[in-house]
Amino acid sequence: MKHTDIVKVLKDRELVGKDITVCGWVRTSRDSKNMAFLELNDGTSLKHLQIVIDKNEMSDIAEYMRLGTSLKVEGTLVDSVVAKDSVELNAKAITVLGVCPPDYPLQKKRHTLEYLRTIPALRVRTNTFNAVFRVRSVLSAAIHEYFQKNNYVYVNTPIITASDSEGAGEMFRVTTIGFSKDYKSEEEYDAADFFRRRAALSVSGQLEGEVAAMALGKIYTFGPSFRAEKSNTQRHVAEFWHVEPEVAFAELPDIIEMAEDMIKYIIKAVLERCPDEMQFFDKHFENGLIEKLKTVSSHNFAVMTYTEAVEILMKNEDKFQNKVKWGDDLMTEHERFISEEICKKPVFLTNYPKDIKAFYMKQNPDGKTVAATDLLVPGVGEIIGCSEREADLDKLLNAMEIRGMKIEDYNDYLSLRKYGSVPHSGFGLGLERMIMYVTGIENIRDVILYPRTVGTIS
Amino acid sequence: MKHTDIVKVLKDRELVGKDITVCGWVRTSRDSKNMAFLELNDGTSLKHLQIVIDKNEMSDIAEYMRLGTSLKVEGTLVDSVVAKDSVELNAKAITVLGVCPPDYPLQKKRHTLEYLRTIPALRVRTNTFNAVFRVRSVLSAAIHEYFQKNNYVYVNTPIITASDSEGAGEMFRVTTIGFSKDYKSEEEYDAADFFRRRAALSVSGQLEGEVAAMALGKIYTFGPSFRAEKSNTQRHVAEFWHVEPEVAFAELPDIIEMAEDMIKYIIKAVLERCPDEMQFFDKHFENGLIEKLKTVSSHNFAVMTYTEAVEILMKNEDKFQNKVKWGDDLMTEHERFISEEICKKPVFLTNYPKDIKAFYMKQNPDGKTVAATDLLVPGVGEIIGCSEREADLDKLLNAMEIRGMKIEDYNDYLSLRKYGSVPHSGFGLGLERMIMYVTGIENIRDVILYPRTVGTIS
Repeated sequence: MKHTDIVKVLKDRELVGKDITVCGWVRTSRDSKNMAFLELNDGTSLKHLQIVIDKNEMSDIAEYMRLGTSLKVEGTLVDSVVAKDSVELNAKAITVLGVCPPDYPLQKKRHTLEYLRTIPALRVRTNTFNAVFRVRSVLSAAIHEYFQKNNYVYVNTPIITASDSEGAGEMFRVTTIGFSKDYKSEEEYDAADFFRRRAALSVSGQLEGEVAAMALGKIYTFGPSFRAEKSNTQRHVAEFWHVEPEVAFAELPDIIEMAEDMIKYIIKAVLERCPDEMQFFDKHFENGLIEKLKTVSSHNFAVMTYTEAVEILMKNEDKFQNKVKWGDDLMTEHERFISEEICKKPVFLTNYPKDIKAFYMKQNPDGKTVAATDLLVPGVGEIIGCSEREADLDKLLNAMEIRGMKIEDYNDYLSLRKYGSVPHSGFGLGLERMIMYVTGIENIRDVILYPRTVGTIS
Repeated sequence: MKHTDIVKVLKDRELVGKDITVCGWVRTSRDSKNMAFLELNDGTSLKHLQIVIDKNEMSDIAEYMRLGTSLKVEGTLVDSVVAKDSVELNAKAITVLGVCPPDYPLQKKRHTLEYLRTIPALRVRTNTFNAVFRVRSVLSAAIHEYFQKNNYVYVNTPIITASDSEGAGEMFRVTTIGFSKDYKSEEEYDAADFFRRRAALSVSGQLEGEVAAMALGKIYTFGPSFRAEKSNTQRHVAEFWHVEPEVAFAELPDIIEMAEDMIKYIIKAVLERCPDEMQFFDKHFENGLIEKLKTVSSHNFAVMTYTEAVEILMKNEDKFQNKVKWGDDLMTEHERFISEEICKKPVFLTNYPKDIKAFYMKQNPDGKTVAATDLLVPGVGEIIGCSEREADLDKLLNAMEIRGMKIEDYNDYLSLRKYGSVPHSGFGLGLERMIMYVTGIENIRDVILYPRTVGTIS
């Protein structure tokens, strides 16, 4: 059906005075004696287009007025009589594309986010979700743009991976067998499975990302990752989208510089390209949001060592549910205190104790810490986990042995250190947490089309 | 480490005459009496940078000469003495970042693609895979660009889905239980699992994409899809990347127009942005490739009905291993004959028999066919499967009942037809098949970093 996107109708001054066709769903309607007014939305913009009906020229308009009905409207686009800098469409012909019965679950009243989660197919039609998913899209596109501009190669690391013991308890298994009594042992079961060995959903593309970076120099992944964690919080889901750049020849300060630059770039992109959506979030979800993001994207992030942070936290220990001492992993309350109360802006916490971090992180000369950093942001906590990788084969093998890892499962990965090893660094950004930060939406379930959490799948 | 990407060094005329630092791996080396030459590659370009060493000024150069060694080189960039339009770096100081022992599996000789599949972590360092993965990245970025420019919203549909009977045999199960003797029945097993019911990896994001399009108007997905097919061919993998646009208010001719426009856009993007890579493929993998793509991207695609195609195929039945009659699904040999021998270009085959197509496709007035089309391209076969979706609730329910589907599992999806249904259409593009088409690479395993096929996972 030939028609014009409403986003274009609202912006393109050249259409004013012209006859055009639009399609969309009725969002609100208002009837008066001689005139009727509809707000039509086709999903391409947060703002609706006002349709003006002259009742003297059109009868039987009742069916057009029902919320949720889909219409095709032909008419003349004119400047709005009442609203400044706005257009409206004087209807000449209206066709009903699809009726909408009165039990439509989205009525004019404001619905809670909790209620909307129960109608996933329809909640996308609300202003909130229209805005969330447009911001999500623009943020994702800006991430691609940033890396493409800077000579990074987009790489798709495998989603199905050969499972290993490391953290296997938190991984989803992938199988074509499932429930079966036909096998005597786990080994027999695995050998009969699709891949003839145990397979799982990837929790991170990092190791394969390193493979690609040791050949293509600068790469990034952008795809789904999975955690079979049973924690039911506002910040955790079983399936999330993960951005993982990996950069050959980059040391920790280099990757921190890039991460900050990227975060600022994507925030600016959203502010520029989604002005209506950002005003909506500022008004309805987080007062001062736009000002916060403008400040963040134009000032340096803080950098603080883990050791300094722990000293501060110990001095303020009465403020926390959980006490902390050097060597402990920080909890969300600690991370938020550091970024919100102490730094009052995003902060890179650096040089964590090696025992609470992963085997692949570069060991610092002090023998106690690794060249790792987490980016903590006010309101959300950690959004980036970052490190320089251990490039020295012997040190890496040592870290793996201490953790009791099966070296032979990593021959492919270890060949990177054997043949022309180079300093390199990378990080992981959780897309959904970034969306929460830029929209002020507090529950991760409300930034995902179909969120997956323990016991919940629809 | 502060250094300049080699892609920039090769292109930016402002660097000529300046002192710069580059990093990379030694790809070839050549020693003569007074001079030595290295070709250095840092992955940011297919072309190498020539490093020139004056042996009178540098001794002990043997360690720099070994293939695969990683180096940091400081020097002065100058115009090449011998090669036109080329630069080289006169080395002043060289640092070895990582040695490379003589058992390096990538030697100077040409390796077969089969051999290279056995060393996935290292094959990315060859020219072929450098070029493949750069084209893959540029193609992916161009796909995002095309849709973003045209007001589409990028949507991430769920990877883990509630499994249903339809085609379940070809789906991977997702479980946190796996092998277990603790459950009496499949029902008990499923109820104890992470999601408290059976879950599987998505084969397509279409149904959820329709949900998003019925609210956001124009959307596209771009993410992994999974098929647990045991077919071991050059064109099938268990995990592939899938682009699935879905467009509200679009009928079949509209979506065909968009699909053709998108394919041409992304082909042009690759030709423009990857000239070195495309020359490489033209020379080593498919003679005439660039000319073919230029022609395809500047001429109309063919459109032919399934019925016409079957008539042609029946007249040529001696040319095929498998005979075909009206109502049969076409096989790759038939699809390739139509696009390669008859049309000699990409062709949209339209209006397939309804019995061989999916329940959600719009039923044509003839009662026998559906408004579906496949895009068949020479050399590859089907790369796009497309259809207008059935917007009429009763017709859709009827198609589901005929197929014995459980209606109650689709309530969420069916609500789209109940409340303000609209004509809409969409398609699925297999990214890897598109890459094969634009590179001339014949085995899908060679366009994926870690391909997943039956019995193979590394």
